[in-house]
Amino acid sequence: MNEMTATPAMPAQSMAADCPLCVAPAEAPLWDDGFCRVIAVDDADHPGFCRVILNRHVREMSDLAEAEQMRLMRVVFAVEKVLRQCTDADKINLASFGNMVAHVHWHVIPRWRDDRRFPEAIWAAALRPTAPARKALTRERLRAAIINELGDDLREPRP
Amino acid sequence: MNEMTATPAMPAQSMAADCPLCVAPAEAPLWDDGFCRVIAVDDADHPGFCRVILNRHVREMSDLAEAEQMRLMRVVFAVEKVLRQCTDADKINLASFGNMVAHVHWHVIPRWRDDRRFPEAIWAAALRPTAPARKALTRERLRAAIINELGDDLREPRP
Repeated sequence: MNEMTATPAMPAQSMAADCPLCVAPAEAPLWDDGFCRVIAVDDADHPGFCRVILNRHVREMSDLAEAEQMRLMRVVFAVEKVLRQCTDADKINLASFGNMVAHVHWHVIPRWRDDRRFPEAIWAAALRPTAPARKALTRERLRAAIINELGDDLREPRP
Repeated sequence: MNEMTATPAMPAQSMAADCPLCVAPAEAPLWDDGFCRVIAVDDADHPGFCRVILNRHVREMSDLAEAEQMRLMRVVFAVEKVLRQCTDADKINLASFGNMVAHVHWHVIPRWRDDRRFPEAIWAAALRPTAPARKALTRERLRAAIINELGDDLREPRP
């Protein structure tokens, strides 16, 4: 075996050229430790909505080793905790589907009793035409609260 | 302090009288290790659909200690693995909402490209009036596969 056939540093499944979660993201993450990133989702009905995205291209949670599953869930639950601290949400919803983009990512969604779809999932038809205006949550506040829970991601500060 | 005021063995939040997931379940669980139980959901569109229900009355994942979070997720991911083994599903969906019943429980849902709502969430409006008939998955097969992943729950065999 020569150097040309040596095992590459990253597995072949690491990135997928046609996956929108593998290409360099347009949005700056709130937090990114190299293993996964947290992004803010722009959703006026659910301010604070975040996604936790595995940086590697992996289809299902059960494709990850147990230590990786737990590392990712630790971030998901930290973001849940942050949304409970930073919003007056009545409930937090967690979901990982991957039906449209089969690259592991988690939705962490604050819900209010009077939001447009409560108590249905946010993917269900709206039950109310409008919802009360919610206080916006700044990226800075979210990022500071995530760092408070998980520590700094040791990357350059975001713009 | 006399015996009447002694701390009960289970914390006060352990069970909630008005919670449908706290009352003795009508359906026999597929698996139950005392900490959580797995039940089969009767859904012809998604045969194999399971719920993993924490036995204690807890509102959010972030109300659990980290070891308990990981213990519960280990069961959720084992059920995901079982559904991948026992069905020809194209994707597995995971979700924890608790908007209707705020007692931690996880939906583990097999999805097919031609099911009635794919690629939308199963809570969205149907996109197709019908879906191909799916092979049913027996409780016995599911339970055997769960035990194969997680070990026996050391309770009496289910009827």
